[in-house]
Amino acid sequence: MTTATTLSRLSHSLPMIAWLKTYTRQDFNSDLFAGLITAILLVPQGIAYAILAGLPPQLGLYASILPPIMYVLLGTSRALSVGPVSIAAIMIASVLQTPAISALGEPVQSTLILSAESGLIMMVMAMLRMGGLVNFISHPVLTGFTSGASLLIIVNQLPQLLGFKSIGCGVEIACYQDYLLAFDFTTLMLGVGALTVLLVFAKLLPKWLKNSGFTLPVVTAISKCGPLLTVLLSTLAVAYWGLMVSHKVAVVGAVPTGLPQLSLDFVAQGHWRLLLPSAAFIALIAYVESVAIAKVTANLNAEKIVPNQELIALAVANLASAVSGGMPVAGGFSRTMVNFSAGARSQMAMLIAAGLLALAVLFCSEWFSFIPKAALAAIILVAITPLVRLGNIIETWRYDQGDGVAELVTLLGVLVFGIEEGISLGIILTFVSYLRKTSHPHIAVVGRIPNTEQFRNIKRHQVETWRHLLLLRVDESITFTNINYIEDYLAAELKRQPDTRHVVLIFTSVSDIDTTALEALENINHELQRAGKTLNISEAKGPVLDKLKKTDFLAHLSPGKVFFRNVDAVNELLG
Amino acid sequence: MTTATTLSRLSHSLPMIAWLKTYTRQDFNSDLFAGLITAILLVPQGIAYAILAGLPPQLGLYASILPPIMYVLLGTSRALSVGPVSIAAIMIASVLQTPAISALGEPVQSTLILSAESGLIMMVMAMLRMGGLVNFISHPVLTGFTSGASLLIIVNQLPQLLGFKSIGCGVEIACYQDYLLAFDFTTLMLGVGALTVLLVFAKLLPKWLKNSGFTLPVVTAISKCGPLLTVLLSTLAVAYWGLMVSHKVAVVGAVPTGLPQLSLDFVAQGHWRLLLPSAAFIALIAYVESVAIAKVTANLNAEKIVPNQELIALAVANLASAVSGGMPVAGGFSRTMVNFSAGARSQMAMLIAAGLLALAVLFCSEWFSFIPKAALAAIILVAITPLVRLGNIIETWRYDQGDGVAELVTLLGVLVFGIEEGISLGIILTFVSYLRKTSHPHIAVVGRIPNTEQFRNIKRHQVETWRHLLLLRVDESITFTNINYIEDYLAAELKRQPDTRHVVLIFTSVSDIDTTALEALENINHELQRAGKTLNISEAKGPVLDKLKKTDFLAHLSPGKVFFRNVDAVNELLG
Repeated sequence: MTTATTLSRLSHSLPMIAWLKTYTRQDFNSDLFAGLITAILLVPQGIAYAILAGLPPQLGLYASILPPIMYVLLGTSRALSVGPVSIAAIMIASVLQTPAISALGEPVQSTLILSAESGLIMMVMAMLRMGGLVNFISHPVLTGFTSGASLLIIVNQLPQLLGFKSIGCGVEIACYQDYLLAFDFTTLMLGVGALTVLLVFAKLLPKWLKNSGFTLPVVTAISKCGPLLTVLLSTLAVAYWGLMVSHKVAVVGAVPTGLPQLSLDFVAQGHWRLLLPSAAFIALIAYVESVAIAKVTANLNAEKIVPNQELIALAVANLASAVSGGMPVAGGFSRTMVNFSAGARSQMAMLIAAGLLALAVLFCSEWFSFIPKAALAAIILVAITPLVRLGNIIETWRYDQGDGVAELVTLLGVLVFGIEEGISLGIILTFVSYLRKTSHPHIAVVGRIPNTEQFRNIKRHQVETWRHLLLLRVDESITFTNINYIEDYLAAELKRQPDTRHVVLIFTSVSDIDTTALEALENINHELQRAGKTLNISEAKGPVLDKLKKTDFLAHLSPGKVFFRNVDAVNELLG
Repeated sequence: MTTATTLSRLSHSLPMIAWLKTYTRQDFNSDLFAGLITAILLVPQGIAYAILAGLPPQLGLYASILPPIMYVLLGTSRALSVGPVSIAAIMIASVLQTPAISALGEPVQSTLILSAESGLIMMVMAMLRMGGLVNFISHPVLTGFTSGASLLIIVNQLPQLLGFKSIGCGVEIACYQDYLLAFDFTTLMLGVGALTVLLVFAKLLPKWLKNSGFTLPVVTAISKCGPLLTVLLSTLAVAYWGLMVSHKVAVVGAVPTGLPQLSLDFVAQGHWRLLLPSAAFIALIAYVESVAIAKVTANLNAEKIVPNQELIALAVANLASAVSGGMPVAGGFSRTMVNFSAGARSQMAMLIAAGLLALAVLFCSEWFSFIPKAALAAIILVAITPLVRLGNIIETWRYDQGDGVAELVTLLGVLVFGIEEGISLGIILTFVSYLRKTSHPHIAVVGRIPNTEQFRNIKRHQVETWRHLLLLRVDESITFTNINYIEDYLAAELKRQPDTRHVVLIFTSVSDIDTTALEALENINHELQRAGKTLNISEAKGPVLDKLKKTDFLAHLSPGKVFFRNVDAVNELLG
């Protein structure tokens, strides 16, 4: 019993215990395979995202070792793969390029501070139980943001792929020659070759293998080797022909051998405050993205994600990244889907992948230095392109115009003003349009469907109405945001129906009436009474009536009344 | 016909035309009397509020001449009295005391810029049709703000009334003598005397006159002479005994003779940008306060205020104040109530009052210089004290705890952090608590009241329920802010009632489903289907169904269905 209680307590703070209790040999075999496949993807991805952020390659590799191990211990998702991700990488790149930060000339130290601050911010959010904050970024804003950031990444990576050198010439016709010469053809060949291999492995090969009758795990295993093969082939070509010297093909460059050294040197740096706002944005996006991805796989597996525990796990993962010399981490979409579709049954798969990464930095780092950046750019482009979902804006707009506008504005905001500005703009816009909506609540004049007790909108149904009776259904809680609109609506209806003797407000949809609204309702009642009319309430819910009973409002209504059902109101007021 | 059309058009932009058309000799007599009474109040009030703001007295007097004339032409309220007001005055004082502004050493020019900027901001708000913005400051926040600002004014004015001089001593016992000597007894006598006259005229005299059978206009006329009499008596005392010399009693000092000179000199000043944020706060508060007061008198008169036209009128009034050397203006509570209760029938009363003010600055300015500040402080204290409504916080809290907290925090914010910070804090808090509320919507599991078609909360009514049926009524629109809560609620209910085969979501209160919520509902449906359950919808409103029909959601529900009435759902799903 005591052991069971201890275990249950432990599994609360270490969710890992939950799956370890029922872990089988078969589970391990699945995880081993998935871990291997994921590791094969993570080596090039780790290096690529570090370079995308404008950092030495080891910051991406180190971020793929200790942080996922921490997540394994603390996270609630069984499939989420934590490590460097593209969106965070482009956010880091944009921070490092701001004049105030680039003037410091310490991109690595600044990045470690960003990792540490992101972790600390997540920890504070977890302590304040702000895991629910993720709800306040709507899906359209998140989609618009992801599309925009992905487009920025593509714009950032295309020159790497094409071997395009920046030139001084403008847009005149005479420049065409300069532009033609600005391409480095060796790099271009490498890039296009890498892209071809990747697309064949990603699109054609899986189809062909499936049609040939191979099982899904084999198809997954083979198709996911595309990135590794791309890197291997292009690296061999560079190393064999010495292209980085003879043709100045850009390569990754020296990667230190050995495991990351734990260090707290970055703590002594002076620019923590300068980096804090950017770290907050990275933490927010990292968290929102991770939870969104974790939810997708959890839905597929019928598991449950605990948002606040995710915050803690991601916080510790980011702190671990800072201490072990890595860039900020999050749950990545492509890596998680690879892990999941390769059959991962638990976080054991990520533990194995992290172990393999560690072996890679121990024994293969010399080879990493010959990897051409063009091949990495190809890998990033193939991974990122599906995240650009411009068509989704039209779909969203068709369903809900406000959401469509928010998605488009967020996308444009990211492209025109920058990443942090774009997401801020999107969030602000969502709230403004949300407040606009709630300040114009749906109100319906209703009548009775003949011979029933059903009351419906007179504009949509054939209903019975009465000359002396105005039945108004307010379809929202009545608060300071919408009471003026409701007042105006009532005034307009009274003008249209001047013979009204009794106004009945139907409160079926009213869950709350705040102080501002109560005062206004008192005024409305007063005015109606002076005009010789009565104000009545019908179908009010228990909590609302309880609240109103604490005031004099219901007493002031007299001769107006509170009715339990609309039909009672009609019978009595007409009688 | 043409004349009528022109008139109707003109009366739209010049609301004054509306009341002029039916203006009678009798109306004029009433307005003449009210204008006289109001002018008698405005002279001391104008001077007092200028001094409260830390400005020369003429800035308050000039603000009482041209600005109200502009409001007469453009405003939609028949009783609102526009001019210098106490809350704006304390806001100006706090701006002028900030180091950046006081270092400029040009309080008058800065104030004129504040007037002009407030006017321009209101004009921009009017053009963007943001008159509805007033709805977004809830009554509790406004009440808390007014109480806090009034307390600040009292703290600011008490030393003037008591003749208290600042001393260097601390709080030790030995200081008692210093503190005793710090009072100037002549000033204290003047102040207490003024306070006594004011209170007698405000409280005792009206009661006594009413009991003696005088008519209401006479009672009002006599009791409103209190401030003028106070000023007259105390000024005579000062002038006769030369108290400002012999006893160093603080007086208003020189007031220039003659009408205000129109000037645009302030335009050339360089600190427009520095003052802009403060001007925005003054504009916001001036507008919100004016509309609130205009509404009170409009309700009493059964008129209608047009918020956007009010913005235009107040904008022009403030610009006129700037040009004619006055401080920012708004509709004042006490002046408006005096005007109204003295029988004003139209803005003609304010036109007359403004004319009398002009005569006063032309012919009486020499006398103004002898007015003791202690008498003005007494006038301000008597006018402001009723605005401190601390008890209201408890009342509000009893009805709605969130609103009570917002009121208290706004009050404390004003006292501790300052005026602008306090109101910002209050507004932010209202929104946060509003979002908290809407993100935790009321949800009820419902059952049928036996032998009826009524479905009610199982917790509040004796209702019929069924083992295989879960009827859930969501009492709010379903959006990104609350969909997670709804998801969790449903999951918890399914755990409590594991035999559920059909979930029915009752949409009586749902007026909208946004994109984020739609995606989540798709997921919920998918999960329920995999668990062999169905998701159904009942009592959805027309606009919601129309929106859902644009998507595949309703098709995906199958075998779940959309029911018109709850009773249909129960009959069919049980059958």
